[in-house]
Parts: sequence; structure tokens; C-alpha cells
Amino acid sequence: MQAAIYRGRRSMSVDDVPVPAPRYGEVFVEVGFNGICGTDLHEFFAGPIFIPDGDPHPLTDKAMPLVMGHEFSGTIREVGAGVSGWAVGDRVAVEPVYRCGECAPCRAGHYNICQKIGFHGLMSDGGMARYTTVPDYMLHRLPESVSLELGALVEPMSVAYHATTLADLNPGDTALVFGAGPIGIGVFQALRGQGVEDTLVVEPSATRRTAIERLGGRAVDPAAVDVPALVADETQGAMADAAFDAAGVAPAVRTALGSIGSRRPLVAVAIYETPLETPLLELVMHESRVQGSLCYTGADFEAVIALMDEGNYDTTGWVETIALGNVVEEGFEALHRGEKMKVLVDPTR
Amino acid sequence: MQAAIYRGRRSMSVDDVPVPAPRYGEVFVEVGFNGICGTDLHEFFAGPIFIPDGDPHPLTDKAMPLVMGHEFSGTIREVGAGVSGWAVGDRVAVEPVYRCGECAPCRAGHYNICQKIGFHGLMSDGGMARYTTVPDYMLHRLPESVSLELGALVEPMSVAYHATTLADLNPGDTALVFGAGPIGIGVFQALRGQGVEDTLVVEPSATRRTAIERLGGRAVDPAAVDVPALVADETQGAMADAAFDAAGVAPAVRTALGSIGSRRPLVAVAIYETPLETPLLELVMHESRVQGSLCYTGADFEAVIALMDEGNYDTTGWVETIALGNVVEEGFEALHRGEKMKVLVDPTR
Repeated sequence: MQAAIYRGRRSMSVDDVPVPAPRYGEVFVEVGFNGICGTDLHEFFAGPIFIPDGDPHPLTDKAMPLVMGHEFSGTIREVGAGVSGWAVGDRVAVEPVYRCGECAPCRAGHYNICQKIGFHGLMSDGGMARYTTVPDYMLHRLPESVSLELGALVEPMSVAYHATTLADLNPGDTALVFGAGPIGIGVFQALRGQGVEDTLVVEPSATRRTAIERLGGRAVDPAAVDVPALVADETQGAMADAAFDAAGVAPAVRTALGSIGSRRPLVAVAIYETPLETPLLELVMHESRVQGSLCYTGADFEAVIALMDEGNYDTTGWVETIALGNVVEEGFEALHRGEKMKVLVDPTR
Repeated sequence: MQAAIYRGRRSMSVDDVPVPAPRYGEVFVEVGFNGICGTDLHEFFAGPIFIPDGDPHPLTDKAMPLVMGHEFSGTIREVGAGVSGWAVGDRVAVEPVYRCGECAPCRAGHYNICQKIGFHGLMSDGGMARYTTVPDYMLHRLPESVSLELGALVEPMSVAYHATTLADLNPGDTALVFGAGPIGIGVFQALRGQGVEDTLVVEPSATRRTAIERLGGRAVDPAAVDVPALVADETQGAMADAAFDAAGVAPAVRTALGSIGSRRPLVAVAIYETPLETPLLELVMHESRVQGSLCYTGADFEAVIALMDEGNYDTTGWVETIALGNVVEEGFEALHRGEKMKVLVDPTR
């Protein structure tokens, strides 16, 4: 079968590799679509970072070279020994997390911060291939209403949804989202699906603001608008009930902390490449907080799939599909140049 | 009567001023002791900052010059009209907060972050005097077991105690305190009083480490000890259940964020003069948080007085008393030079 093989920094090719077979407790999945993630871009242009180079990962026993891809949907084509509750033909989204089950976070149910966490498609052969095999505990059933394209977006949308669960918001509250990349879009759609309609997206890129507007949202340019003053005006001084940083840059953090109300959170759902100058005095004066958010657990996957089933997610204007054979040029390189926002790889092409 | 009058930056003198009379709803208090706070130092050496210069404060209608001092205990010598429940001779600690009662934080019970907050002794004539008058809602009764010296420390100890209420700690948990000034000492003593015995204080000053040790605590020098490694070793990798930043400097924040466990807080109880480089990625990777803490409410005053009544606070080695007449040289100047840790002013001398 054809698969995108990662061999190191800027070294990836689509090669013919053996079709894998399901082991005990695994299913064999025909991949529907596989998204390219910001993490994948970091691995390609600056890695290997998370992908094991040399020593194999403790939970998967795998190191590079390997098949990339951890955001994918598919259809079960074979059920391995020891698997029950799943059948050939079932359509699934894959929650690609290997966890130890033994560390303190795992024991508390927070395996998204497992101390040994691994990802299918970063620490094992993943979804940028016609087929892959996954442990049954990674499977989430897709209802008929959810396409395989949307199914491939469950993973990044769960990253965003998980952040909303840490924001202590209720329907009718007001929220700010900094950054309208895929995660910011996911936060916006997750909030709207949960009844938080009054969300303002802050994004310097006109292209990305247009994407939000095409989804029915409201976006402003922080270079043109005094965001804290706007929020103060629109909330009669109460300020926003929560903010989300999906941008990861100092101006977003600074503006967010100046725009949230007393005892309210800024949820940080970005990968900060360096420490940022952070106005901690804002936290003290308003008893507000910065709360980190990482990945998701199965509950987030199920919640996103339910919101998708209710029609809360729209791919218009920000998601494109490409053929597996063109994954480097039309995927990684085009995303790196900022020409695209989100790319799904179709392994049948 | 003699009183320390603030007239602006580096301009303070002890002068003879009229004895105030209690208005409706107020009591007339003979001051026992009045502490000098870090905020007072900022006002003296870099102010006026919070003290109104020109326009009077909206809640007190006062501006400078005024009598400084917002950390004080005393004895009621006269009860004004409209006051019930208090009698001449009652010993009190004064919670010096004027609040509007109308803003969103006030309505939620968080008047410590009132949008118009004022302090008796910064926005009105305070406790560096033989007598002062205060509204009855500021009064907290001192039991016989609590001296007037300790009573004057209820205010700063409440700042510290309030921070502990935002840390989600339980008896037996482990905690880190960065900075062994009066607030750090207060956090240490509040935690111990609540059964959090396993507290490590991180403090670069040998003098301040010695103060912690004389109180029965444990302190390390961050220049000599790898704090995250030490915590990892002592907690078998679980890391600290909470950290407190009472230092307000970047190395403390960085070390604290590297030393707390998953989903645990760093409580920021410092005045950050500038934005600090903050490793926000630590928050994301462990879903931890930075929580701001400001001042206190009456519940914190009552809790501290109860802990004092149980014998949990000790002034040995860190608190000194001076005469009101020497407040500038032996108080403000000596504190500014770092020669003393905490100074109480005795207005009878």
C-alpha cells in the first residue's frame, strides 16, 4: 500500500509498504481521511521532536522511520482477536493516544497528560496510508450524519473542545478566541455548539477573519481595534467570561489578560515556543488565571462527535482535501507557506 | 495627637493633629500597633501610587495629605451612633477595606477585587496615629489569646491566608513557597495551621531562610539547590501540589512552574512591577495554572484570627517594634535598606 514515510527533517516520501495486520486487541482500518496537524509541520520542518529517533517509544516500541498521521477517520475492514463490540464496516474516528495507565495523571483519568504519552502516527505507523491498525480502545463510532471528512477533524476539534471544558463557561456567557487557525476555529464552533454564542475572534490575518465570518462568526483585527476597550464597552465593564489563546504569541496573551473579567480564565491551548512576557499583575489585580489545556480524552471525542451529529461543525472555507501522493508539496509545503489553513489527505488518491 | 502624615514621595513627618471623632456607624479606636507594609514603602519611595493626589477617592472623599497605616489593631474607646454589637474596651483587628458594594465582584462577594476599592490608611486617615475612627463593618474581634502585636499582623497574614484558599490544598499535601518576606512567612504559617506541614520555602537570602528555620520551617537557596529536581525526588515524580509566588521575580515563577504537578496551581500573591518572561508551555504540558490572589475578605480575617487563637503564628525573628516618632528612619528607611523584615509602629511611644 502507499504510505507517507517520515525519515527525519524535510525527509518524507510516499512509498509502497506492506499492508499491516491487526494484532490481538486491534482492528484493521481503511483510512478515510487524515489531517495534517501543526505538530506534523514541526516534525517535518524542525524535527524530529516527538517522533522517536533512535530509542523506541516505551509504549509502542517504535522509532522512525514510520508512517505519519494521527488525525484520521476510517472504516473497519477486519477485527482482530480479542476485540468485541466492533464489526467490519463500522465507521470510526480514531483517538490516537497511547497511555501508560499507571502514572498519577492516568490514575486520575487525565491520560491526556500521561507522563509517557504516545500518539499513533508519531510514535507508531499512523494514518497517512491506505490502511492502519489501531487498538480497539482508540475507536469512536461515527454516526451516519458525520462524514469521513468531518471524522478526520474530530481529533483537532477535540483539542479545541477540551479547552472549552476548562473555561467554566455557561450558555449566554461571552468569550474571546485569539487566533483563527484550526484550533481557534474549533474553539469557536465548540462554544457555539454549547450555547456560548457571544464569541469574538481576534485574528490579525484578513484571510482567517474571513474564514470565521463565513462560518457565521465575528472577528476583529487587533491592529485596528482596541480589544479590551471594545469588550469593556460591550459588557458594561464586566469584561469577557473567558478567553482562549490559540495564537501562542505575547500580544494575544497580553490583550486576553486585559479583556477577561474578575476570577475568570484565560485558557492557553497553544504551543509556546519560548517563554513570553506575561503581565502577571493583571492576574493578581482581578484574581484571574491562566489555565493550560493539552489534547483531549475520550469524553472530548464523544462530545465533539455529538456536536457534529447536531450539525455544529462546518468545513466551508478552511478545509481542503489533497491526494496522498501530493502530501509534501500540496500539504506540508503549502501549509508552511500559509497558503492553506487545514489539509486532509485522501489516501485513495 | 501624634500621627505620621504622608505628603508625597519621601515626604512624611510625625505631627500633632486633631483627634478624630466617630461619625455615624463608626467607632473610635485607640491604635495598638500598626505595621508598615510593602505598599507603604512603594508610596513613600515611589508614590503617590494608590494614595489620591488631587481628586479625592470616590468612596472616602479624601486625598493626601493623610495619616498612613492600614495594618493595625486597637481597642475601642468610643462607639458612635448607629453602631451595635461593639463596646468600649473591645480589642479589634481592623480590615481596612472600603468597597462600593455595587460592582460585579462586590455582588459576587469578592469585594477584595472591588472596582473602586479603597483602604483605610491609604485613601483615608489610618493607623499610624494614637487614634483613628473606622466604620463598624471593618471590625474583627480579637480573643484574649491574641496580643495587639499579633492583631496588627492579621491584615498581612490575611493576604497570605487568602492565597492559600485559592490553592486547592488538603492536609498532607506538599507545597512550595517562593520568597520568605512577610507574605511568604504568612503563607508558610497559614499552611502549617491548616495541616499542610510539608512546605518547602525557596529564598535566596540567608537571613530570610534563617527566619523560616527559626519558625520551624525548611528553606532552601535556589542558587544552591535544583528545586524541581529536589521536589521530583521527594515526591517520587508527582511534584508539588501547589506553589505560591510571594517573590514576584521571573526565576521564582519559572522554577515554580517547573515544580508543580499536573493540574495544580501556582498562586501569584506578589506585585509584579513589570511583565515577566513566563514559560507558558509548562502550563499547557501539565494543564497547570497560574492563579492571581489579591488582598482578603472578612472570612480570611476570621480564619487568621482563629489560627492565631490556636497558636499557629509566631513573630520570633522577623517582627520588630519601633516608636511612632522614629517611623521614617527606623521604619521606612530601615526596611528599604533591607535591615528589617517587618516593623510594627507603637503609637504610644
